[in-house]
Amino acid sequence: MQVTVLGAGSWGTTVATLVAQRNNAVLWARNAQHAEEITKEHTNSTYLPGFTLPQSVTATSDLEEAVHAADVLIMGIPSQSFRTVLTEAAKLLRPWVPVVSLTKGLERGSHLRMTQVIEQVLPNNPAAALTGPNLAKEIMAGNAASSVVATRDPTLGRALQDVLRRGLFRVYTNDDVAGCELGGALKNVIAIAAGMAEGLSAGDNTRAAVLSRGLQELTRLGVALGGRPETFAGLTGLGDLVATCMSPQSRNRYVGEQLGLGKPIAEILASMTMVAEGVKTAPVVMELAEQYGIDLPICDRVNRAVTGEISAAEAYLGLLRVRPGSEADPY
Amino acid sequence: MQVTVLGAGSWGTTVATLVAQRNNAVLWARNAQHAEEITKEHTNSTYLPGFTLPQSVTATSDLEEAVHAADVLIMGIPSQSFRTVLTEAAKLLRPWVPVVSLTKGLERGSHLRMTQVIEQVLPNNPAAALTGPNLAKEIMAGNAASSVVATRDPTLGRALQDVLRRGLFRVYTNDDVAGCELGGALKNVIAIAAGMAEGLSAGDNTRAAVLSRGLQELTRLGVALGGRPETFAGLTGLGDLVATCMSPQSRNRYVGEQLGLGKPIAEILASMTMVAEGVKTAPVVMELAEQYGIDLPICDRVNRAVTGEISAAEAYLGLLRVRPGSEADPY
Repeated sequence: MQVTVLGAGSWGTTVATLVAQRNNAVLWARNAQHAEEITKEHTNSTYLPGFTLPQSVTATSDLEEAVHAADVLIMGIPSQSFRTVLTEAAKLLRPWVPVVSLTKGLERGSHLRMTQVIEQVLPNNPAAALTGPNLAKEIMAGNAASSVVATRDPTLGRALQDVLRRGLFRVYTNDDVAGCELGGALKNVIAIAAGMAEGLSAGDNTRAAVLSRGLQELTRLGVALGGRPETFAGLTGLGDLVATCMSPQSRNRYVGEQLGLGKPIAEILASMTMVAEGVKTAPVVMELAEQYGIDLPICDRVNRAVTGEISAAEAYLGLLRVRPGSEADPY
Repeated sequence: MQVTVLGAGSWGTTVATLVAQRNNAVLWARNAQHAEEITKEHTNSTYLPGFTLPQSVTATSDLEEAVHAADVLIMGIPSQSFRTVLTEAAKLLRPWVPVVSLTKGLERGSHLRMTQVIEQVLPNNPAAALTGPNLAKEIMAGNAASSVVATRDPTLGRALQDVLRRGLFRVYTNDDVAGCELGGALKNVIAIAAGMAEGLSAGDNTRAAVLSRGLQELTRLGVALGGRPETFAGLTGLGDLVATCMSPQSRNRYVGEQLGLGKPIAEILASMTMVAEGVKTAPVVMELAEQYGIDLPICDRVNRAVTGEISAAEAYLGLLRVRPGSEADPY
């Protein structure tokens, strides 16, 4: 099978490396030099410095060449350009070919999940998402990781499981597509809150409380948007949240930590080369919360902190000021 | 109100310190010298070295003096001597006085939770449990923490919430007593697994996967034993699991880490002054799993590793060898 991955960022390249063991893997990079480096040097020095890619991973900047022969199309494109790139690719893709999203985020304006975008652009091609606690560099380094392929059709799920799994990269299936995608998209907001607690020098108790109460908010919104509660307690919700909140590699955690240390948000964002998705997701989450009439105290404080309305210390104290009720309540 | 705490370990002493702000707090220590140190020196150098206790916390080694005047009885006694101490105290306790357990564990042989032991020994006194991600030293140091008072009666829950809460120590209520207690008891086994992964130098992805899949096992068993699934995703399940798996203060994580580094279990246990509850809980969990016909692959491997049957590396590889199915399945 030929597996084509659109987008040669760190995660797209890692997924191409994983599938290359048993399949023909082709990466598409917008930049011709970037593609040439991957094919000729077997490196991706911009996004995965220090790693050597397998010889069997090749790259091209020609979208037609990449897409036309694809038996599986994998989308490693940021949420805000996902639809544009997919629309171009759609004209070139053969019928029935499944499209797998690697992107954790919601489309601005429409608030759609990426598989919903796939279903709009390519209504006759089955859509799936690969999501879970997957820090690219750890997988490249050969550490064990678990992930989930989310798709409504269990037969397709099992087939994609076979395409995507590899020794220490364990792939589970889950037919709750909404739940799996939402966990990955929403967790970044909570990761900022965890980072803020870290920056304010709170301890492990506080961190555990932010994670638990944050997961509860994420679940409450996710269930309103069509996910199943147990999905949020699994790899794509809790698992991804834990990895993001704990890893020093997480950009969202970093933003929160710097806010906690008292740095202004503009300065923090200006100092970063890569995007912290949670900063963009926070306002979307609050729009959705209002639309569905859901109280999300932690997300609300994060949103106000990332927009510069309040400081991290104010956000944190504001949360503590409200007296708790039952564990099932928002406060 | 007089609040009596039986047991002057680190957590019992911390809880006495918390309630002393608005109540008269009396600690009972078996050892007269230990009691005298607390009352006269305002320190508990054995269990909370470096901290000063409030003047209003006093201690006694006279059980009658401690229990007779109690308006609330709090049990900070390890699971294996809980029934014996409570049976002595029962003769001295006034009617209707609520009894709150601080103990995370199951009684050996009977497999009972601590509030079930309270109900057997004192069928006419209401039982409750205080449980959550609460590392004693962080609370003594003034960091924010959240906890849960679990009791079937919501009126009692709210009353105890008022007794136990303090500024940065947030107390939620939950009427799923079984779920709250089981999370705290079972999480120690998963903490050993997380420690093993750490000792074997696995990364954040692996850690997140062990936590997520471990929480799923804990939930599966906990629901069979009468808990509600959402409780395990809250402070007393997930929250406590996160704090235990992450904190360098956790004894269970330490045991796993040392196993992961290849040390024999006998040597690890011999080097520790305090008990790692998970080592004792693992065989109980496997007895319960067999009784209820539940597959718990992670707990099973931890149990074999802590009994010395297999090494941590073997436990870990054994888990990876099985091919994953749906996320809802045990494997």
